[in-house]
Amino acid sequence: MAHVPLPDGVPGIVGLFAFRPETAGPLNSLAEVLLRGDSTLTRGERELIAAYVSRLNACTFCCESHSTFAALQLDGGADLVDDVLAGPGDAAVTPKLRALLDVARAVQVGGQAVTAELVAEARSHDATDVEIHDTVLIAAAFCMFNRYVDGLGTPTPDGPEAYLEMGRMIVEHGYTSPGAG
Amino acid sequence: MAHVPLPDGVPGIVGLFAFRPETAGPLNSLAEVLLRGDSTLTRGERELIAAYVSRLNACTFCCESHSTFAALQLDGGADLVDDVLAGPGDAAVTPKLRALLDVARAVQVGGQAVTAELVAEARSHDATDVEIHDTVLIAAAFCMFNRYVDGLGTPTPDGPEAYLEMGRMIVEHGYTSPGAG
Repeated sequence: MAHVPLPDGVPGIVGLFAFRPETAGPLNSLAEVLLRGDSTLTRGERELIAAYVSRLNACTFCCESHSTFAALQLDGGADLVDDVLAGPGDAAVTPKLRALLDVARAVQVGGQAVTAELVAEARSHDATDVEIHDTVLIAAAFCMFNRYVDGLGTPTPDGPEAYLEMGRMIVEHGYTSPGAG
Repeated sequence: MAHVPLPDGVPGIVGLFAFRPETAGPLNSLAEVLLRGDSTLTRGERELIAAYVSRLNACTFCCESHSTFAALQLDGGADLVDDVLAGPGDAAVTPKLRALLDVARAVQVGGQAVTAELVAEARSHDATDVEIHDTVLIAAAFCMFNRYVDGLGTPTPDGPEAYLEMGRMIVEHGYTSPGAG
């Protein structure tokens, strides 16, 4: 049961947005610019980083959501997402994305775990300053979103259909449109 | 040395805001509504939660900043802040704030660490739903801010004067005014 009274039938962070619209605004704006704004990382790659960090934090709602959003926007689809979540070392991603996922994994442990070596490895595969910045901030932001969703005990949808429905909405309209999750 | 090129002489998160203004907007809006927006928790109490989580994450810049901002806005001043950072159990805070700090400490560990018992304890000291929600989100947000600041290796100011200067600015003008840190 959720730790605060949330509207019925509205799972995960969506119920929290309804409970506290004052904080929903900046949170959705942050997701929109990080995951869908102008970037040399594709939207699928950025959703994959979000899903991976959410898996490391064992946040079911965020991991399922962003895995679905990533699968909808990546050529490799759900199979590639599953491979990355099982361990990016063996997944068919570019060396640059693999190095950025390593940076994201360090961020999940803590800010001090991001070493100059991890950053240099990403840079050796042509990761730009902004890509490194955005990877760190996406990973850090999901350390927030995951704690927010689980720390308030929000409910999780039963099946994959609910995630797919949210995913289609997000892919088409983004995080800041009315009704987006 | 910072992992991305930041402007000289601009420490901590302030340099990151200059590097990437697109994400600075939502991040500052989030800080403003959480730490300074309408609330039955005082601004000093909310800054104290931010400082405490930052200490748990060993983020020097955020801990020193928000300790200073808390001290400027709490009757107990810097002594009370130091006591809380050393362990809220013995500090002269209200039982409600002590219970909310315990919730925040759990959030720092992970969302699943926030138990129904911790929430019930806060509620037994008259914490409201919104206060519980905001405590969880403040703690979660600082798990992001701390990782962002340290994950990109930002520099820390040398002495307390720089934090005091930022603090006076924040207390007077807030997080979303031009030039705020």
